[in-house]
Amino acid sequence: MPTYKAPVRDMRFLMNEVFDFESHYKTIPEGEEATPDMVEAIIGEMAKLCENTLAPLYQTGDEEGCKFEDGKVTTPKGFKEAYDEFVAGGWQGLSHPVEFGGQGLPASLGLIKSEMMATANWSFTMYPGLSMGAMNTIQMHGSDQQLQDYLVPLTEGRWGGTMCLTEPQCGTDLGQVKTKAEPQEDGSYKISGTKIFISSGEHDLTENIVHIVLARLPDAPKGTKGISLFIVPKYLPGKIGEDNGVHCGSLEKKMGIKASATCVMNFDEATGFLIGPENQGLECMFTFMNTARIGTSIQGLAHAELSYQGALTYAKERKSMRALSGKKEPDAIADSLIHHGDVRRMLLKQKAVAEGGRAMIYFAAQYADKMISAAQADNDEEYKKWDDELGFLTPILKGFLTEKGLEVANDGMQVFGGHGYIKEHGMEQIVRDARISTLYEGTTGIQALDLLGRKVLLLTKGKCVRDFSKKLVDFGTKNLRDPKLRPFAWKLLKIAAEWNYLTTRIMLVAAKDRDVVSTASYDFLMYSGYAMMAYFWALQAGVARDKLENGGNEPAEFYKAKLATAEFYFDRMLPSAKAHADAALKPTKSTMQLKPEHFSFDYE
Amino acid sequence: MPTYKAPVRDMRFLMNEVFDFESHYKTIPEGEEATPDMVEAIIGEMAKLCENTLAPLYQTGDEEGCKFEDGKVTTPKGFKEAYDEFVAGGWQGLSHPVEFGGQGLPASLGLIKSEMMATANWSFTMYPGLSMGAMNTIQMHGSDQQLQDYLVPLTEGRWGGTMCLTEPQCGTDLGQVKTKAEPQEDGSYKISGTKIFISSGEHDLTENIVHIVLARLPDAPKGTKGISLFIVPKYLPGKIGEDNGVHCGSLEKKMGIKASATCVMNFDEATGFLIGPENQGLECMFTFMNTARIGTSIQGLAHAELSYQGALTYAKERKSMRALSGKKEPDAIADSLIHHGDVRRMLLKQKAVAEGGRAMIYFAAQYADKMISAAQADNDEEYKKWDDELGFLTPILKGFLTEKGLEVANDGMQVFGGHGYIKEHGMEQIVRDARISTLYEGTTGIQALDLLGRKVLLLTKGKCVRDFSKKLVDFGTKNLRDPKLRPFAWKLLKIAAEWNYLTTRIMLVAAKDRDVVSTASYDFLMYSGYAMMAYFWALQAGVARDKLENGGNEPAEFYKAKLATAEFYFDRMLPSAKAHADAALKPTKSTMQLKPEHFSFDYE
Repeated sequence: MPTYKAPVRDMRFLMNEVFDFESHYKTIPEGEEATPDMVEAIIGEMAKLCENTLAPLYQTGDEEGCKFEDGKVTTPKGFKEAYDEFVAGGWQGLSHPVEFGGQGLPASLGLIKSEMMATANWSFTMYPGLSMGAMNTIQMHGSDQQLQDYLVPLTEGRWGGTMCLTEPQCGTDLGQVKTKAEPQEDGSYKISGTKIFISSGEHDLTENIVHIVLARLPDAPKGTKGISLFIVPKYLPGKIGEDNGVHCGSLEKKMGIKASATCVMNFDEATGFLIGPENQGLECMFTFMNTARIGTSIQGLAHAELSYQGALTYAKERKSMRALSGKKEPDAIADSLIHHGDVRRMLLKQKAVAEGGRAMIYFAAQYADKMISAAQADNDEEYKKWDDELGFLTPILKGFLTEKGLEVANDGMQVFGGHGYIKEHGMEQIVRDARISTLYEGTTGIQALDLLGRKVLLLTKGKCVRDFSKKLVDFGTKNLRDPKLRPFAWKLLKIAAEWNYLTTRIMLVAAKDRDVVSTASYDFLMYSGYAMMAYFWALQAGVARDKLENGGNEPAEFYKAKLATAEFYFDRMLPSAKAHADAALKPTKSTMQLKPEHFSFDYE
Repeated sequence: MPTYKAPVRDMRFLMNEVFDFESHYKTIPEGEEATPDMVEAIIGEMAKLCENTLAPLYQTGDEEGCKFEDGKVTTPKGFKEAYDEFVAGGWQGLSHPVEFGGQGLPASLGLIKSEMMATANWSFTMYPGLSMGAMNTIQMHGSDQQLQDYLVPLTEGRWGGTMCLTEPQCGTDLGQVKTKAEPQEDGSYKISGTKIFISSGEHDLTENIVHIVLARLPDAPKGTKGISLFIVPKYLPGKIGEDNGVHCGSLEKKMGIKASATCVMNFDEATGFLIGPENQGLECMFTFMNTARIGTSIQGLAHAELSYQGALTYAKERKSMRALSGKKEPDAIADSLIHHGDVRRMLLKQKAVAEGGRAMIYFAAQYADKMISAAQADNDEEYKKWDDELGFLTPILKGFLTEKGLEVANDGMQVFGGHGYIKEHGMEQIVRDARISTLYEGTTGIQALDLLGRKVLLLTKGKCVRDFSKKLVDFGTKNLRDPKLRPFAWKLLKIAAEWNYLTTRIMLVAAKDRDVVSTASYDFLMYSGYAMMAYFWALQAGVARDKLENGGNEPAEFYKAKLATAEFYFDRMLPSAKAHADAALKPTKSTMQLKPEHFSFDYE
């Protein structure tokens, strides 16, 4: 079983040397308290909680799973105590307003906290993570009374929260939602319907659970324009313990994340309260979708990191065969796995995704800070600007990082050979847990449509790609004469040109043939992910080169490893971008021409 | 849960229209009885057994798993009855000699049988599959007495068999094997040691189990040159029920293939018998390695097919959103998934891997027929020729098909969205079961080393690539003027040139820098897989085009689907080949330069 160690050296590198969080924090009110000392203290304390409390429950949580009996859900042994410790530390409200019981620190610190928790124990992290969704929705759209009634206990962590969207007949296509809301004379509503796949829908960690539920008012318009949002608590405020018609019907049996309770939730005339305007539930729901999706994209990075930690440890211990270029450990019965080129290929891929993904998340976290800061200040223009910037990043982060996270979690298993398949080593659990990440919070296909169809074509006509790719061009032109950075610079210039070409070409086709949006979207998303990660690896390589030449480079091997990993990424991973570009530019007919009725495995 | 339907139309297409098995069977003695009527009867009967008996046990077998109590292993409910039905049908000895109780049919029919069983229920199929390994070893290297004592009951299926190679300290690196063989005065040996990961090591399906065990004689040379092969039965012949010191110590808890018993086997002075010459155990073991590995490569195809069957059925039923080019099912609440481009991308990938993989296996199966036919006739020269031909194909089939099989099994889950993660739909089981395929029988990394280091560089200096790529050139030059086939022809010519260029370049580098073999091997393997599958898709497209234009095309949609899938493969999947070629040609230093001690996740 991998023993989680918080990668604090890399976190400090990104915060202090690559992105300069200290200066960034000076630009937002929430950053006032986020002094370097405070940040260090938070990272240090969170690392302890993760390494000592959460990580040891990762494998046992999977083995034991959640139990369902008489409508009650019991989380695995140790989860309640760990949650209490988490609450006692004030961690839930870390980046929520002081007026509701939070610590008022920047959202980015919340994401940095989440990454450590996610890597130590993803299933555990989902409980406070889902609460976050409810908290953000209430904070943004709730009335003053709702803020007091719900946001305060949620921020304190005394209560948990959920998002209740999916129903048996629909997940992605929320226009099909059937759950009903009947208005009552007192201004409340009776909510009735069945929701499925509700993470943290019922559990024993908190005294109450606040459900944010999508439902339809009587005579609401059909489809997505007739959906409203409701707060439906397990127990009404002040009536803890009194049944409100909210019940868990069963737990889903899943491939992984077994310590996370995935519930079928039945609402039987449960009392609920409208939040936000009538029939605008989906818009309200999507307000914080970007931050929620960044939260999920962290899973990609987290499982890459954890699997890398496990695989690297094994690769240094396990002896097998001799290196092709001659014995490396002549006194041992064989050389360690790490001396074999193909094992290194897998380890470097893992390292590239974990550290490249971390850089992408930290970068986006600064945008999230700015967006939330603008929201707190009711500055709509600034809010929209940063929400749009984030809107371009999130489908790439969510889609690309979870796909690559799953891929390199599999690589980690592969490093173990047959042992990777055996439960006790813990490597297969990471793969099973990672597998959900490309499915929920919008599948990869949905992220791809959101990116290409909405963000790139509809909303910005390619401007978002042009804007972001300027960063690649800037790095490229600035470093083209630096002997160490030239290969990165040169390739970034090529990628920037190709990314824009790809966007323009698809845009031209889409004007005549809408199908291109769905046939090219996945490849466009993956291309964008490779391109974006290339930029962040070049950026890290630039800092590393600078430190190695100009000092401040303790330990030197950290920086050498950065340069070597960047080189590996550009040489061995980036070529896949071209394959995605080639595929994306092919005629739509190669995907669309076969008639649905001719698709078969059983031709007569 | 996918309901397995044997893809008999595609099987007939390959046997009768693409590869002409009828003529092929006339060239080998074993083919005499394999008349078209006989082949049809075998396919029909096997399809029934698979669809009606084996497939219904697939999901229940996973849920129940194998049980271990008091040294005994119990297979899941229904397995024993299904195995008895399998034995009663004479299926185990289908392609083994009549003189030992078999039906004497060609090896290729055995592989075609295996594909159906593998797809219907992989875990079940492993029991008779492992026996096959023992049967082949005994047939090739056993004394007359051993043939009578062991091969007959194995061929009848009354006894099962295993291969006992791996020990806790070594899997790939068998030179580290420690199990001891002490010679006894009666010519037998006392075998002592522990073997792990022994599939079918203990179970309740057969009255006896014959283990083929790698062990060391006293004073044997160190490493691989001091390993001998032994037959060690659970019960000695004629002494059924009398303990022979062969015991199952425990069952491994695994990610998947839970109905297959993976045993720790303890040999405590168990009586065994030398098979083959002293200290040449590894060579003997590897005699039939090619056929064993083709057997495992079938798993890639099987899981691609089963996942495709499940995903296609769901994609035609589930309604979600509207197609981008306008409503396709205006009377329904939404369009079926199959109308969405990104879902089609995944389905077509699955279809391309399943049917392309099937073509690759059927092609290799004819080589296996010729090799085995030569072996039966003691024609060493012919045997070596076909063994060499197969030796080039097997690492590609095993490495590429299992990797792609796993990938598209994941695609099938993805088509289901969140439901794919839930056990009851059966899609996640396919992924868990498929996951072992890239690990056992030599990991993908080992296949890649075998292909590039041994088959391509050491043994043939690139000739095997030159020879195989001639097929691509032949197809290309022949069809360059055919308007329908021109795109395939043109790309095959390019691929043939690139494949040889890649081989030559790596060969030149390898002369100075051995590390290239291990840093480029994986990408070279994947490139070779894409190239080879391209050829077999072009071949199928050629036949389909011919049938559509010249008649004999019932049903026409089958042939149209072939052409459409070929086009999809060339347009959307083949671009990945170039990415692998690009990566393979990068300097070794991008993988090798980082010192092992600088590889870390925890820099101080």
